[in-house]
Amino acid sequence: MKKEELLLEGERIDSLQRNGYEIIQHPGKFCFGMDAVLLSVFAKAMPGEDVLDLCTGTGVLPLLMSAKTEGRHYCGLEIQPDVADMAKRSVILNGLEEKIDIICGDLKEAEGLIPPASFDVVTCNPPYMAGGDGLINPADTKAVSRHEICCTLMDVLLCAKKFLKPGGRFYMVHRPFRLAEICIKMSEAGLEAKSLRMVYPKADKEPNMILIEGKSGAKSGMKVLPPLIIMDGEGKYTKEVADIYLEA
Amino acid sequence: MKKEELLLEGERIDSLQRNGYEIIQHPGKFCFGMDAVLLSVFAKAMPGEDVLDLCTGTGVLPLLMSAKTEGRHYCGLEIQPDVADMAKRSVILNGLEEKIDIICGDLKEAEGLIPPASFDVVTCNPPYMAGGDGLINPADTKAVSRHEICCTLMDVLLCAKKFLKPGGRFYMVHRPFRLAEICIKMSEAGLEAKSLRMVYPKADKEPNMILIEGKSGAKSGMKVLPPLIIMDGEGKYTKEVADIYLEA
Repeated sequence: MKKEELLLEGERIDSLQRNGYEIIQHPGKFCFGMDAVLLSVFAKAMPGEDVLDLCTGTGVLPLLMSAKTEGRHYCGLEIQPDVADMAKRSVILNGLEEKIDIICGDLKEAEGLIPPASFDVVTCNPPYMAGGDGLINPADTKAVSRHEICCTLMDVLLCAKKFLKPGGRFYMVHRPFRLAEICIKMSEAGLEAKSLRMVYPKADKEPNMILIEGKSGAKSGMKVLPPLIIMDGEGKYTKEVADIYLEA
Repeated sequence: MKKEELLLEGERIDSLQRNGYEIIQHPGKFCFGMDAVLLSVFAKAMPGEDVLDLCTGTGVLPLLMSAKTEGRHYCGLEIQPDVADMAKRSVILNGLEEKIDIICGDLKEAEGLIPPASFDVVTCNPPYMAGGDGLINPADTKAVSRHEICCTLMDVLLCAKKFLKPGGRFYMVHRPFRLAEICIKMSEAGLEAKSLRMVYPKADKEPNMILIEGKSGAKSGMKVLPPLIIMDGEGKYTKEVADIYLEA
């Protein structure tokens, strides 16, 4: 079968710049950004571990993590059927059917689809903007990726807690303006914040992303990591970011 | 009266490098550090505002802020009588009796000493280490400054909330490992975290301080500010830090 036969109208194949992996995306819908790439490097999966990605979208996190980490198996959960279908075709495109499952379903009602307390690691690149309800069309794929239309932050955290084994790790990328709320709600959900990395576009700018790790059932007390600075003073990627994009 | 007549045995007079102000310190007790200097710049007092400093120690925060900001009046609360006495003598040393009051008392029982809901701004450079109870001698001035012997983080936050006017601002310096706990407890105390600045010793190191601002009765949602980096790659102060120390 030719690769192009996996594509529906308007879709294209983009390189993931890792292991030669590729991903099917639709420019009119949601295309992955640096957030997903940085989360896939921040999140750690040890040999033999099982990983669940919530709000997986086109499956970029499981694809990148399966290329980068030594987990046993990766599972992506996505509520939008057309987007989950793109993710499934990307898994086939890369011949990763043994390593990655894409499940279409609502994370608020996923017990029937996925066994609870069965994952070592849960990852999520969730919608960042709170309170889209009513204002935004739930059929708008981009809006669902960006606004909390189908799930809130608390829904994501409670779902992560439910599917993690005791002591399991949760990794999320989010926006800095919600940091305090995230710490509070992670604690309420039983996922204490254990490490945090601020992502600054430049060394003299406000951060535009946070990478945060929680641990199921852990005590309070966290490690804040060195800053992740994207661009140097000349507008070029810093060595760390260039290395992330260059490793293939 | 000669300046030296204000000193007790073992004490010395150090420059505050602002407005020509000086401070009485005892090298065997607690001497102020960069945390106090950075907090005094992070905290904002507008013209006419009243400022209360909790755990004021030798009064370094009111002294620095009275030099730097246009607040109407500054009040420092300190539990240890000998340390409060040093702070009072520093106020006299600088001729600031009209502008700064030092009150000796316990912040957990300060209603009789200070009128509630009467301050626009509360500042605090509290003890950083939790759970010193029982292990450490309460007569050890250095230990009281570093460990939560006389007050916990929650005591500080509830006190700040009590003495702030509605909408008043709270500014604190603390350690990064307690960031999540601080966000949670600030919210519980009714002081929502509104801005945060990470202080990194160098651009590639973990932060060793956080500067955080809360607002009494505010909604959730915060601004994370550009990183404050202390040293450049050559081990010299960055321009921002050099400017803080040079302004006199």
